[in-house]
Amino acid sequence: MTAPRAKAPRPQGDVEALAALAKADMAAVDALIVDRMQSPVPVIPLLAEHIIAAGGKRLRPLLTIAAARAATSASTEVDLAGAMKLAASVEFIHTATLLHDDVVDGSERRRGKVAAHLIWGSATSVLVGDFLFARAFELMVETGQLRALGILAQASSVIAQGEVLQLTRAHDLNLDQETYLRIISAKTAELFAAAAESGAVGVSADEKTTAALRAFGLNLGLAFQLADDALDYGGSSETLGKNAGDDFREGKATLPLLLAVARTRGREDAFWERTINKGERTEDDFRRARELIIGTGALTSTLDAAADYADAAKASLQVLLAGPWRDALEGLADFAVSRAT
Amino acid sequence: MTAPRAKAPRPQGDVEALAALAKADMAAVDALIVDRMQSPVPVIPLLAEHIIAAGGKRLRPLLTIAAARAATSASTEVDLAGAMKLAASVEFIHTATLLHDDVVDGSERRRGKVAAHLIWGSATSVLVGDFLFARAFELMVETGQLRALGILAQASSVIAQGEVLQLTRAHDLNLDQETYLRIISAKTAELFAAAAESGAVGVSADEKTTAALRAFGLNLGLAFQLADDALDYGGSSETLGKNAGDDFREGKATLPLLLAVARTRGREDAFWERTINKGERTEDDFRRARELIIGTGALTSTLDAAADYADAAKASLQVLLAGPWRDALEGLADFAVSRAT
Repeated sequence: MTAPRAKAPRPQGDVEALAALAKADMAAVDALIVDRMQSPVPVIPLLAEHIIAAGGKRLRPLLTIAAARAATSASTEVDLAGAMKLAASVEFIHTATLLHDDVVDGSERRRGKVAAHLIWGSATSVLVGDFLFARAFELMVETGQLRALGILAQASSVIAQGEVLQLTRAHDLNLDQETYLRIISAKTAELFAAAAESGAVGVSADEKTTAALRAFGLNLGLAFQLADDALDYGGSSETLGKNAGDDFREGKATLPLLLAVARTRGREDAFWERTINKGERTEDDFRRARELIIGTGALTSTLDAAADYADAAKASLQVLLAGPWRDALEGLADFAVSRAT
Repeated sequence: MTAPRAKAPRPQGDVEALAALAKADMAAVDALIVDRMQSPVPVIPLLAEHIIAAGGKRLRPLLTIAAARAATSASTEVDLAGAMKLAASVEFIHTATLLHDDVVDGSERRRGKVAAHLIWGSATSVLVGDFLFARAFELMVETGQLRALGILAQASSVIAQGEVLQLTRAHDLNLDQETYLRIISAKTAELFAAAAESGAVGVSADEKTTAALRAFGLNLGLAFQLADDALDYGGSSETLGKNAGDDFREGKATLPLLLAVARTRGREDAFWERTINKGERTEDDFRRARELIIGTGALTSTLDAAADYADAAKASLQVLLAGPWRDALEGLADFAVSRAT
């Protein structure tokens, strides 16, 4: 992670193959999500629909379903009812954290729409988040899968701790890489790991398979987050990512920035001090930061780290039986990185 | 509930007898609470300690323990380990809702201290609430009691729905009594009910006992909330309660106010419209509102309703074996009302 390396060209990968395989399963999960976000208090389904129906890729519940399918690819008859409820729970937990994050960060947009708290107020957003979180646990209880409950309860507490850690260290240019990885591992990768693991547990997979799918999820989550952090400075190409600059505008200490700060120590300290610590930033400053991040190889190093995690994710799948589900999961791991390069 | 009634003097009751009986059990619950609110992220235990160690009466976990003890009063050897974890979970859920409520309401004080969000910020308060909520579910999973998990998961979703309902109807003078009771049943009484029920389930009580303890908790919670709402207008005596006037200052539509509005229809409409709907309130207005609430018998009617629920709570205990725990729970029900008269 310290210096740019020459690497063989990486496979592109995609999420489409997996989405196509899981289409019928995910339609059932979506129906469950819509059914269980209902409440006699009218604003709750309204707000929930605004954020959930807006879609997004449903990557986490997709991972739960894919893990359940990949773990049972040798079976002809698989009962996915439990895994589907767990997948819906995962999406509810994820949505609850998004609602609370947007209040916490004062974000203005989410999934291409106006953030819910700007329409219904912060109070309602916080409380509907609480409702979705509680509803997730109600759904999990229905599965009777105490072990899956434990996995997702623990993931929820790890996520909250990661969010608080990020909040207290977000603008800290002295953040070490280890702490940065601890933060993204907790706030992002843990739910990917729990999503995949609970899918395996939901179909009573053996321990080796369950551990492999958890490892896949964790590494995939790290790859996704690192690639996201790189995308914010425009990927490795000269074309900017679609939301480029948001992290910089918020003064967030992500890996590309931390590496660039370290690599320009002694000559750009005043620039970083002003733009990140003091929060005095212009659009020109973003362009300059981006030049430094690309010029020092910080962006390449971040993408290399993402690629390493994607490779680790793929490697952990090797204990599973070969087949279309395993192939599609491999494609997803490649996609995590390729979308940012 | 429509007109003041002449009633026999009520027993005073107290919470001390129950607290004394449960002293050793509650010390163990407290130790568990402190142990499980720890986190490597320093601000989490700091904030949690600020609100949890500030104490309060620990009424809800006390109810869980008392229910477990009352349900097993005929047994010589009782394993309370599970019930204690459930009691700690109940306190974590309650604390999480307090943290979120104070952010939502912008409250300045809680349990005699400055509200956490004014010290650590709203963002941290929301996220530490999320952490405590997740930690509650982790603790519940450890008990292996899927049924207790279901009870507390459902209570959590009912509470969140009640909070949202209150938020959308809080300043509505046309709120009907049925909706008001639905709100306080959801936001307050449901956790009392779940606390008592999960205590019974935690010691594998029979169905009749479990249902009786749930009914006790629900009615007790309603009695407590109605008495709280009365206390805000100074109780039935001429001396003011310690936080008197807060509900009025926030324009909250509680039962004493709703009854007074209904009983002065046609002659005080402008006053209520200005002070509640428009939110233009002076200290003189509070004194006038209080006079109207006392003068129309709205306060007495509210306390009568509280007394009816306290009596229902006591009646539901009759299926339990007589003994010191049942006596102490009866004393608690009486105390719910007597502290406000």
